[in-house]
Amino acid sequence: MVNSASMTSILVLNGPNLNLLGTREPDIYGATTLAELEELCSGWGEALGLAVSCAQSNHEGELVDALQAARATHAGFIVNAGAFTHTSIALLDAIRGVALPTIEVHLSNIHGREEFRHHSYIAQAAIGVVAGFGIDSYRLALEAMARHLSSASSNAGA
Amino acid sequence: MVNSASMTSILVLNGPNLNLLGTREPDIYGATTLAELEELCSGWGEALGLAVSCAQSNHEGELVDALQAARATHAGFIVNAGAFTHTSIALLDAIRGVALPTIEVHLSNIHGREEFRHHSYIAQAAIGVVAGFGIDSYRLALEAMARHLSSASSNAGA
Amino acid sequence: MVNSASMTSILVLNGPNLNLLGTREPDIYGATTLAELEELCSGWGEALGLAVSCAQSNHEGELVDALQAARATHAGFIVNAGAFTHTSIALLDAIRGVALPTIEVHLSNIHGREEFRHHSYIAQAAIGVVAGFGIDSYRLALEAMARHLSSASSNAGA
Amino acid sequence: MVNSASMTSILVLNGPNLNLLGTREPDIYGATTLAELEELCSGWGEALGLAVSCAQSNHEGELVDALQAARATHAGFIVNAGAFTHTSIALLDAIRGVALPTIEVHLSNIHGREEFRHHSYIAQAAIGVVAGFGIDSYRLALEAMARHLSSASSNAGA
Amino acid sequence: MVNSASMTSILVLNGPNLNLLGTREPDIYGATTLAELEELCSGWGEALGLAVSCAQSNHEGELVDALQAARATHAGFIVNAGAFTHTSIALLDAIRGVALPTIEVHLSNIHGREEFRHHSYIAQAAIGVVAGFGIDSYRLALEAMARHLSSASSNAGA
Amino acid sequence: MVNSASMTSILVLNGPNLNLLGTREPDIYGATTLAELEELCSGWGEALGLAVSCAQSNHEGELVDALQAARATHAGFIVNAGAFTHTSIALLDAIRGVALPTIEVHLSNIHGREEFRHHSYIAQAAIGVVAGFGIDSYRLALEAMARHLSSASSNAGA
Amino acid sequence: MVNSASMTSILVLNGPNLNLLGTREPDIYGATTLAELEELCSGWGEALGLAVSCAQSNHEGELVDALQAARATHAGFIVNAGAFTHTSIALLDAIRGVALPTIEVHLSNIHGREEFRHHSYIAQAAIGVVAGFGIDSYRLALEAMARHLSSASSNAGA
Amino acid sequence: MVNSASMTSILVLNGPNLNLLGTREPDIYGATTLAELEELCSGWGEALGLAVSCAQSNHEGELVDALQAARATHAGFIVNAGAFTHTSIALLDAIRGVALPTIEVHLSNIHGREEFRHHSYIAQAAIGVVAGFGIDSYRLALEAMARHLSSASSNAGA
Amino acid sequence: MVNSASMTSILVLNGPNLNLLGTREPDIYGATTLAELEELCSGWGEALGLAVSCAQSNHEGELVDALQAARATHAGFIVNAGAFTHTSIALLDAIRGVALPTIEVHLSNIHGREEFRHHSYIAQAAIGVVAGFGIDSYRLALEAMARHLSSASSNAGA
Amino acid sequence: MVNSASMTSILVLNGPNLNLLGTREPDIYGATTLAELEELCSGWGEALGLAVSCAQSNHEGELVDALQAARATHAGFIVNAGAFTHTSIALLDAIRGVALPTIEVHLSNIHGREEFRHHSYIAQAAIGVVAGFGIDSYRLALEAMARHLSSASSNAGA
Amino acid sequence: MVNSASMTSILVLNGPNLNLLGTREPDIYGATTLAELEELCSGWGEALGLAVSCAQSNHEGELVDALQAARATHAGFIVNAGAFTHTSIALLDAIRGVALPTIEVHLSNIHGREEFRHHSYIAQAAIGVVAGFGIDSYRLALEAMARHLSSASSNAGA
Amino acid sequence: MVNSASMTSILVLNGPNLNLLGTREPDIYGATTLAELEELCSGWGEALGLAVSCAQSNHEGELVDALQAARATHAGFIVNAGAFTHTSIALLDAIRGVALPTIEVHLSNIHGREEFRHHSYIAQAAIGVVAGFGIDSYRLALEAMARHLSSASSNAGA
Repeated sequence: MVNSASMTSILVLNGPNLNLLGTREPDIYGATTLAELEELCSGWGEALGLAVSCAQSNHEGELVDALQAARATHAGFIVNAGAFTHTSIALLDAIRGVALPTIEVHLSNIHGREEFRHHSYIAQAAIGVVAGFGIDSYRLALEAMARHLSSASSNAGA
Repeated sequence: MVNSASMTSILVLNGPNLNLLGTREPDIYGATTLAELEELCSGWGEALGLAVSCAQSNHEGELVDALQAARATHAGFIVNAGAFTHTSIALLDAIRGVALPTIEVHLSNIHGREEFRHHSYIAQAAIGVVAGFGIDSYRLALEAMARHLSSASSNAGA
Repeated sequence: MVNSASMTSILVLNGPNLNLLGTREPDIYGATTLAELEELCSGWGEALGLAVSCAQSNHEGELVDALQAARATHAGFIVNAGAFTHTSIALLDAIRGVALPTIEVHLSNIHGREEFRHHSYIAQAAIGVVAGFGIDSYRLALEAMARHLSSASSNAGA
Repeated sequence: MVNSASMTSILVLNGPNLNLLGTREPDIYGATTLAELEELCSGWGEALGLAVSCAQSNHEGELVDALQAARATHAGFIVNAGAFTHTSIALLDAIRGVALPTIEVHLSNIHGREEFRHHSYIAQAAIGVVAGFGIDSYRLALEAMARHLSSASSNAGA
Repeated sequence: MVNSASMTSILVLNGPNLNLLGTREPDIYGATTLAELEELCSGWGEALGLAVSCAQSNHEGELVDALQAARATHAGFIVNAGAFTHTSIALLDAIRGVALPTIEVHLSNIHGREEFRHHSYIAQAAIGVVAGFGIDSYRLALEAMARHLSSASSNAGA
Repeated sequence: MVNSASMTSILVLNGPNLNLLGTREPDIYGATTLAELEELCSGWGEALGLAVSCAQSNHEGELVDALQAARATHAGFIVNAGAFTHTSIALLDAIRGVALPTIEVHLSNIHGREEFRHHSYIAQAAIGVVAGFGIDSYRLALEAMARHLSSASSNAGA
Repeated sequence: MVNSASMTSILVLNGPNLNLLGTREPDIYGATTLAELEELCSGWGEALGLAVSCAQSNHEGELVDALQAARATHAGFIVNAGAFTHTSIALLDAIRGVALPTIEVHLSNIHGREEFRHHSYIAQAAIGVVAGFGIDSYRLALEAMARHLSSASSNAGA
Repeated sequence: MVNSASMTSILVLNGPNLNLLGTREPDIYGATTLAELEELCSGWGEALGLAVSCAQSNHEGELVDALQAARATHAGFIVNAGAFTHTSIALLDAIRGVALPTIEVHLSNIHGREEFRHHSYIAQAAIGVVAGFGIDSYRLALEAMARHLSSASSNAGA
Repeated sequence: MVNSASMTSILVLNGPNLNLLGTREPDIYGATTLAELEELCSGWGEALGLAVSCAQSNHEGELVDALQAARATHAGFIVNAGAFTHTSIALLDAIRGVALPTIEVHLSNIHGREEFRHHSYIAQAAIGVVAGFGIDSYRLALEAMARHLSSASSNAGA
Repeated sequence: MVNSASMTSILVLNGPNLNLLGTREPDIYGATTLAELEELCSGWGEALGLAVSCAQSNHEGELVDALQAARATHAGFIVNAGAFTHTSIALLDAIRGVALPTIEVHLSNIHGREEFRHHSYIAQAAIGVVAGFGIDSYRLALEAMARHLSSASSNAGA
Repeated sequence: MVNSASMTSILVLNGPNLNLLGTREPDIYGATTLAELEELCSGWGEALGLAVSCAQSNHEGELVDALQAARATHAGFIVNAGAFTHTSIALLDAIRGVALPTIEVHLSNIHGREEFRHHSYIAQAAIGVVAGFGIDSYRLALEAMARHLSSASSNAGA
Repeated sequence: MVNSASMTSILVLNGPNLNLLGTREPDIYGATTLAELEELCSGWGEALGLAVSCAQSNHEGELVDALQAARATHAGFIVNAGAFTHTSIALLDAIRGVALPTIEVHLSNIHGREEFRHHSYIAQAAIGVVAGFGIDSYRLALEAMARHLSSASSNAGA
């Protein structure tokens, strides 16, 4: 059994309308609900030595609050800001202010959708982006985070 | 007396600063307060066989929450998203996610105002738009909704 | 029986290709023909105390002529300028020059169509806009006009 | 008495809504009607040795027809294309096709009005522009035309 | 001798200023007049089994009328909308409304001319475009139409 | 001792991420925390005869609420809307709706930063802007407010 | 003989490179020198009852100075700002600050030249524009000014 | 039998991905392969007195090389530059440098596709364009070329 | 030992300048050479049941050729098109033409670099994008591909 | 009495048309003349331990000269560049070249005026901006400068 | 010793802030002063048979004056217009009006700097551009001028 | 005799269509062929102590290859990328990756040609630009390179 006390904490943060997952347009977004996705993320994280907390909000301000609050206790963020990806400078500033490694994820490939979804404020403060693989985007992002943190800490050890 | 139990429920949702109705710039927006407007909507709805609930918020997230929560209990939305009309992709996504018929309303004719009020994200997911008739815009939208729903249901009966 | 002599006259003016109504793409535009729509408008108007005249032309110049000619005899305009909505400054100028209350209508929700249909010159001189409700857009516009004129005249009486 | 048979013929062509002159917004456009303006143009022309014909239409096609028809009998055009100034490539092509000297006139200073009135297709084929002087714009344009034609013919005699 | 009664009817429609053909700028547009071009089109059509009617107008509205009127009696359109190519959404809507196969032609290569001639509304509803070959553009368009219609009908027979 | 009961009340409102003040990028934003800044504002205000209340939120809706709520009790606003400066039409509308004198402040010179920080919705409803002087921007804004209010009241006395 | 003491004074102000008149590109700008043009303006003005002063500078600041200095002694401006037409907000502000009637002139038709010559700051503060008639543009502008001032003064007498 | 030695040589040049013809999306592009198309072009050419060579490459540089190499031996080009149509200034320069008559062809109507396919660099150096008729576009282009060359040579004989 | 004969083949395709990997700007791109990266990809693939082939070219045409050639033998593409990401419609068309599942990868986060690197043609035809994780981007893309293919095949079995 | 010899020198530099202060549009700009403003600045400066010199010019070049000349003798600039704010890269370069702390001031809130006044070149080299408080903008800027210089010097002493 | 009387005269004209050369940002612009640069230009010119005069001004008008004045006595211009490069249509017009061969020089590579330095009005009237080589840009420009003039004169001799 | 073994090697790289030099439009580009130009470059280089290699390709990929291959053996690049100047991010990346000093040259003044030739990707990685002097641009670039390298090496010796 993994001892989460010794694991690195990661916040998986989902933005507006992602609470509808599994219930809206299942042919596009799949049948997995948000609760199931969060469960999966915990499992994937555990296997990678990451203690995953999850949060979701339709409120831009709550997402900013959550990022700020996580600063003391977490080592990185996986963020799917949903619609706020394209409009929220406040989230960009929060990520920059908190200054933890952040990976942007999207279920769908936002570059294949409407023009206004091609621009991302989040990306300007993120290490990288994973988009288009459905819920698998989160698994890939967690792996990327695990390796990013471990290479950073081994560098720190040098 | 109308039996509201058997009536179709419609949510009339008002966005930021519409709670100031009747108290700001009455020469432009009229002297009707938001409470009075909501009262009027209920009455207009009742006459059309619609049970009207009303909600208002200055918080984009609460408006998204309200749309999502109404999915189980309502048959359509009348939305005056105020300033969020022009900036909120989150509301657009909520309307698309909930997938109920939605009519966009505005008190003023937004196309006769500042350039940045000419674009509407809401309109991309709405059946139609009624703008420029003051509080009468709501009455017209309720009528349009009533007929839209009844033609849809009679088609369904075919 | 309604005495049309004492009724307020309203011109319902339809622009290019609206004479094809009912014959083209009936799944989109419905099976109602222009003649039937005009009949309906007369009936709707009569019930509202409005004597409705109707005109249609594929010629921008004839639409301008019609608006000018109606000045002496009518109290307001319901205008569906079709494609000219987006390109005709001449119609905008005519509406401003004639200076009667004007309501813009559209069968479809022009904001959900091609980018070049999002801009309206007409809207800059209109009281308001009703779009997206098929032929019901006209009924709503007539109601809006009736109430607009009656509130204006009762104000005048004040 | 001037013998018009020997005078150079000039067509003064007015576009959409200029037939409303004197009846709309007299505080802006003055109280002179189109008929009076045309009378004045004839008088001004006569004093300059120009036989002035006048025409007005709200129809772009009729304006194109008028320019083409005048080719055989006239020596130049004074054109106030009104709203078509900003939208009609057809008028630009007609002026180029007919290839007579053309002066663009406007009652108001179009550069001090809405952005969409700052661009002129007509100007691309015109000798010059006179704008902003009310009906006096026409008098100045006629003078400019008279001198343009006489300097051209004296050059031709050289 | 060809029996035109059994031939497929095609409308060749020319827009503003094309009636000046052969008389303006012959070094650019050639010395063929519109009447001669129409004669040639009839001959070319006959050889292809097409009964060609021709029409020209400087009026956008008449061009829309002509397309609508031809619906009952013709099988396709060859359209040179001249200046309206770049500005007329009404013509685009007419072609879409009538829903007959349409080929866009131009005498000159519009992409080698002014920037504002690079955009075509017509092209959005046309099968294809032939531009730049002078009057030969019409011959090529007629051939393309003949083969398009025959392949469509043989498919229909399948 | 100053009697705050008789002082004019001013609301100093800070937007998203300003609660991180003093803890993020201290080399850029300085070591003063938000609590200390609010303390300083109270002191500066007191010296100017202004009773300063302070509020901060990462939630656009709460900022709108705060402005509306302050209408009954305050005489003016000092607003640093942070990231919302550039995106929030709702805040612009709130300031216009409440109609109290408002001064926009920024710690940094937003015109020397990313392009998307050069545009301000707030500025369109503000008396003026003070930007670039760190926490001193607030002191200057309070002074400007004090003098603005006193000149307004002395004018009112005239 | 006209008594200039009783005449209205008008400043004709020419901007950069207009001192090259008559010496550069005479096939375009004509062979008249600036001195001769100024002489002509004086004569034309005298015939109209206007005492014309002339000034030219290649320095934007001197043109601003000249406009300001003329405020006490002149009744109107004829301004050919040359290249500054398109770039100088300072001249626009000067004309607005001095608040005398101003007519913009150009030798050539600026709308038929490079794209960057199509925009005019001056026009935003001018009564009207005369462009494209060579030195005759000045004569026409002087006539327009004379009539503008006389109609203004006769109105003042009303 | 035609003697190709005496025929005019024409190069039909196809750009990137046209080698997939007949194998990709046959419902859109048809079942004809590139080899078959080239065979057809040879036959069509022969009937027109043209000796047709064909080449295809996915390499922009090879297309440039091919155009340059053909200069000594060919009399004209039929070019379907595929995706390079919209991005290759090098091909534009090659066509201008080689200075042989060039006709641009496309299988599909590029103006009915994505926005980025509406612009053509090739068109700026081409006599004309044939687009939208599938492989028939090539036949039409060859006919156009044959007539263009013969009218040019008969002019040369004049 | 894995039997590659039974494994699914995947092409990892690298575009211009990626052959410089490990030798240029190692502080940004790391010290891994392209050969080492390709070795790593083979290993990662093998562990996922994927037989990985690798190719790199600085030639857009060779990349198009490689994608086309792989159609018969491969099941998917991992593409880092380097600079061509932003400019090559030919690669977009090749991916669409070949119609195999494609994942776009980048070493760096292209959205945090120059503006012209924010747009991707490749993304319009890709399942998804992985960017910003250095060579780990390739490992993540291979995992995503493995799961994409296996879920597709299990769906096919349904 | 303050001993100006020991005071820090600051240049207050005013640009075009600011010499009209107090004489133009007093309802907007107030009745204070430039001379009075300069007097006030001296007094405000003295109270802050700053020896204030003032200069004004309508000439961009003189403003550049003044900034350069002040380098040897002054410690900072307060600049109201008027219209040059929006157009003068030369002033931006001068401020950067001289490299003294610079504060941008405006009497009016330039963001509430015409679109072309929203952009500032000066702001790119300034510490900060004070705009919208009439002549009080200068007082605030002087205070900001005094504190900026004293904190800089105390840092220097650290 | 070279006899300057027989040498071709060239004006080297420097624009705003170039008088700061050697004193500002020496790590970027080098330690050479303007006086030293002018000395060097004279020497370089002499070796090329060119008599070099030099002038510098921060005043756009003086630069225009200088170009005009040099017309009678000089054979060409080397112009570093500094910031005016990007904003001065007046300088463009002066160069065109004077019509002497002009070479544009820059110390730095303006295309590697801010976006607003990428556009040059001067370049539109210049033979060519030399940018990015520090003071060596002037030497190269003088060489280019010498060879340009000598090839022009030898052509003239042909 | 110069001993090339000890000379610094420079690659002169020419892009698409420059192999047509001397054979196309000789009135514009001169009669010098590419072979002659390369010969001249060798001679000019030798005189400057530079061993010049030359290469030309119409293939973007070959140009990238050539730059990469030259890294080990050359000290700098003179690049005329022709049409690729404006479109090739791959060349920009290659120059940055190889990190040798690069000078951009053009035969013609690209800023005096079509709008799409005003932008250069190459310039973003180049020391400087020489454009507009025909083949003399290369001579000047070689001189600039020689001095750049010698000043760099003497600095290195410092």
